[in-house]
Amino acid sequence: MDRRTFIKGTALGATASALAAPAIAQGTVKLVMVTSWGRGLAGVFDAAQKVADNINAMSDGSIEVEVKAAGELVGAFEVFDAVSAGQADMYHAADYYFISQHPAFAFFTGVPFGMTATELNNWYYHGTGMQRHHELGEIFNLRSFLAGNTGSQAGGWFRQEINGPEDFQGLKFRMPGLGGKALSVMGASVQNLPGAEVYQALANGSIDGTEWIGPWADEKAGFQEITKTYYAAGFHEPSAGLSLAVNLEKFNSLSAQHQAMIEVACGHANVWNLSQYLYNNGAALQRLQSDGVTVLEFPESVWDAFGAASQTVYDENMDDEIFRTIYEEFIAAMNDSSGWITQSISAYRRQRDRVLSAA
Amino acid sequence: MDRRTFIKGTALGATASALAAPAIAQGTVKLVMVTSWGRGLAGVFDAAQKVADNINAMSDGSIEVEVKAAGELVGAFEVFDAVSAGQADMYHAADYYFISQHPAFAFFTGVPFGMTATELNNWYYHGTGMQRHHELGEIFNLRSFLAGNTGSQAGGWFRQEINGPEDFQGLKFRMPGLGGKALSVMGASVQNLPGAEVYQALANGSIDGTEWIGPWADEKAGFQEITKTYYAAGFHEPSAGLSLAVNLEKFNSLSAQHQAMIEVACGHANVWNLSQYLYNNGAALQRLQSDGVTVLEFPESVWDAFGAASQTVYDENMDDEIFRTIYEEFIAAMNDSSGWITQSISAYRRQRDRVLSAA
Repeated sequence: MDRRTFIKGTALGATASALAAPAIAQGTVKLVMVTSWGRGLAGVFDAAQKVADNINAMSDGSIEVEVKAAGELVGAFEVFDAVSAGQADMYHAADYYFISQHPAFAFFTGVPFGMTATELNNWYYHGTGMQRHHELGEIFNLRSFLAGNTGSQAGGWFRQEINGPEDFQGLKFRMPGLGGKALSVMGASVQNLPGAEVYQALANGSIDGTEWIGPWADEKAGFQEITKTYYAAGFHEPSAGLSLAVNLEKFNSLSAQHQAMIEVACGHANVWNLSQYLYNNGAALQRLQSDGVTVLEFPESVWDAFGAASQTVYDENMDDEIFRTIYEEFIAAMNDSSGWITQSISAYRRQRDRVLSAA
Repeated sequence: MDRRTFIKGTALGATASALAAPAIAQGTVKLVMVTSWGRGLAGVFDAAQKVADNINAMSDGSIEVEVKAAGELVGAFEVFDAVSAGQADMYHAADYYFISQHPAFAFFTGVPFGMTATELNNWYYHGTGMQRHHELGEIFNLRSFLAGNTGSQAGGWFRQEINGPEDFQGLKFRMPGLGGKALSVMGASVQNLPGAEVYQALANGSIDGTEWIGPWADEKAGFQEITKTYYAAGFHEPSAGLSLAVNLEKFNSLSAQHQAMIEVACGHANVWNLSQYLYNNGAALQRLQSDGVTVLEFPESVWDAFGAASQTVYDENMDDEIFRTIYEEFIAAMNDSSGWITQSISAYRRQRDRVLSAA
């Protein structure tokens, strides 16, 4: 289906009249933010709330953003269509939830063997990243911004150790995005469940394993109560960007001042949220290990299989011109910035660990 | 000298009357930002300008921040005293320029064997970092925020290869901050020169070598025209945070709305500026190498000597209670967040490089 036809036939057509006049009451623009997150869900909901709080504080009440948890107005994965159609003003979510709307949304969360959060920001703010995010969003009547990052996702929780790629055959595993599609290529039975449903699914055996975020969020979710086998590094989401997307007509109806507040608040939330996860993950990992969790690294044969399966998934999407354009720019930017990071930050951290452990 | 006595006797006493009424003309708060940067200096001046532009855009003219380059109102290293005393409203600089005012300012730029930019943000936004920055600033009548980061600093430019710690004996080298003090311990003759003076000093031989920032900024400075020997990783500033500091009485005179704009704009500039350096460093490094520059890594014996000298510098400052408190919190936060980063992001990047290079 052609995306522009889709949009013209549904979202834009249905809502243009409702959107013509922004909801202004007594000088206040009221904006409803729907999210993919349960109320108070550590990290992800915090990022959404931080964006709202900062916009509200900076506007001194001339904007009032109200944050809705998943299910309060629309379901976790319905936020995209709701904002596209103008039923809500903005969403906060992980854009790879919407790869069925367009597979290129995956790049603005994280993709297999792709950029880390730091690398993503380089491309986003100084390469073509933000521009492509805007262009992709516009197809769906959205103005999209990075507005959080949960960092490099853990490899996840398994009932049994993974000794080779064959162990994924028939494995019922929760993993969204292109990473999940790669696991399917490897023979896994992949499901995409919202966060609120994952614990129960793992506990009752309807899935054999799951990735979620990282030690801090995973510990809060309680997966260590079900299994003690945890893989630290994963191939599937080396970055996990979160996005704020505003209904484009609503965005265009706002003053330049209010538009700037939204953009700047999203940038602030981006660094604030990534650092929230990284600050808390270390201590959480230590608690998990004290609680009997074994932290493992996938063997190289499994990483090799992840690599081959991921390439298959990329190849399957290359007929889409938007996907291919963004993929090529994304990989080029990754290759450009990766070398210096390896020679400077990585080399430094290796020497720091060596020197300090000897002291 | 007791800092509070110092402040009471000079800055605060001299300027309290001048600061009593904020400079409001026709509903506009005009704020002068002095900086340590030459006008247009790549990256660092950009970060200062980005903070100003965002505040101006979000306030729709109710604030007007005017950015002054080094020397336009006060010199590069005079911005601290000028803002402390109320002669200017805010500065943008690297706070380790001001370790003679208080050595603990070094932590908010970068310290030897300390946190990377990513790690610094973790502590700053979610540990005690920002609180300590505020407390330290308050001693000097400042409200301080991180507002940029030039990333992990390159080891620097040398006339000759470094083969052992003895090669630093008598070496005339430009390096600010606690790293410079560590090089002094190793026998180097260390100078702190503002950016605008470094090229000439290296060219005319008044210094034998210099660190500056990283490939992108170093290439623009032109050091490759003078020598071709470049060390990528350095021990001295694994992060190089930039700060915006507002005269505290001026800050307190602002509305909560304007205070929020300053804080959020600084957070945005922090991620925007770090990613600017990392986006550009990779390509610049490749150009430097094409231009004949040899990129090297210090031998382990030199890293060991850096480590011992850095510990000497820390020990020399431990009698200062503020320094010791911040040092202990800083190191604890680094140790807390470092383990997970090594097991997740670093492990991922290693596997990514291995798998993609084999493909």
